[in-house]
Amino acid sequence: MVDDMKVKTPHQRTISALVQDRPGVLSRISGLFRRRGFNISSLAVGRSEKSGLSRMTFVVEGSENVLKNVADQLEKLIDVVEARDITEKNIVWRELALIKVKFNQKNRSEILELASIFRANIIDIGVETVTMEITGGKNKIDSMIELLNKFSVREVIRTGRVATLRGTLTSGKDDGEFHQNNSVLPLPQISEETGSV
Amino acid sequence: MVDDMKVKTPHQRTISALVQDRPGVLSRISGLFRRRGFNISSLAVGRSEKSGLSRMTFVVEGSENVLKNVADQLEKLIDVVEARDITEKNIVWRELALIKVKFNQKNRSEILELASIFRANIIDIGVETVTMEITGGKNKIDSMIELLNKFSVREVIRTGRVATLRGTLTSGKDDGEFHQNNSVLPLPQISEETGSV
Repeated sequence: MVDDMKVKTPHQRTISALVQDRPGVLSRISGLFRRRGFNISSLAVGRSEKSGLSRMTFVVEGSENVLKNVADQLEKLIDVVEARDITEKNIVWRELALIKVKFNQKNRSEILELASIFRANIIDIGVETVTMEITGGKNKIDSMIELLNKFSVREVIRTGRVATLRGTLTSGKDDGEFHQNNSVLPLPQISEETGSV
Repeated sequence: MVDDMKVKTPHQRTISALVQDRPGVLSRISGLFRRRGFNISSLAVGRSEKSGLSRMTFVVEGSENVLKNVADQLEKLIDVVEARDITEKNIVWRELALIKVKFNQKNRSEILELASIFRANIIDIGVETVTMEITGGKNKIDSMIELLNKFSVREVIRTGRVATLRGTLTSGKDDGEFHQNNSVLPLPQISEETGSV
């Protein structure tokens, strides 16, 4: 929930920036953040829809006063084409996590059931581990990891948050359950942001 | 396909690093990459399974000779707990992309059908745009964007690659279709890496 996030983490901003795709860009941007005392709590970098440009999505933490102008400061860098602070906008966001869990014959079906409830996809089964991919908001992924911890989580690999503006101005309190029916099992499905079933 | 990637991009390495979660880490790591002349083509940063440690997954490009020791060089940095070059290992990897496409009544069902074939989830529908989330290998996501381009793609926000070792030593040539049945439609489904239906 957008509101939820604002209450719990008032000094966190989500910034979406379009940058030149060339060597040294990340070094210059992260240097700026370091000098200003921002901590980057999440970062996702990938090619954008425009040739030669990458899009970076940052979640930065710091004192509220300092963070206010972070997008403006970013835009002053020569590599940065555009930077927007989208924290207060009507956004939809996602993260991706790969979670590797140790399993045995006894807990195998319990793990697979949990994966199904969270709409996680099994992407690898090994001799003694299973790896799943899960997308959603931070809270959903945190809940999944918490639940899986009793089976011994071997590895968690998370991307940073990616976010975009919604196509409408009004939004509900939750993170928009527009998912297609991607489970044939009549299992309860969880809300993207709250992690509650 | 792992082999596919090796042939097409011989000077690309995938590095998985466990780093201290503190300010300035990214600045020091990207500074090292800049000085050594590596280009970071993809980066994903998120919390790891260990408290106080983040995991960074880099895809770096550069001359083959220079790239050989990139993991060793990373490990010399004080913030880096562990760095592994997993390029030649038996890995499974994923990216996440949010794709925002302009739609109208005429092409709406064609876009939704494409989303279904690629197992993309619709996460927002606006007045004139639809946003979907899609996970998979780089080639699958590239194919999806290419196909959607005829409908006018407004925005692409991609995470970098996240990757982990498989739980078995042998692997097939493709990227492991362990997906649960996540579509109730009898549509053809595409291979993760090749993007072919």
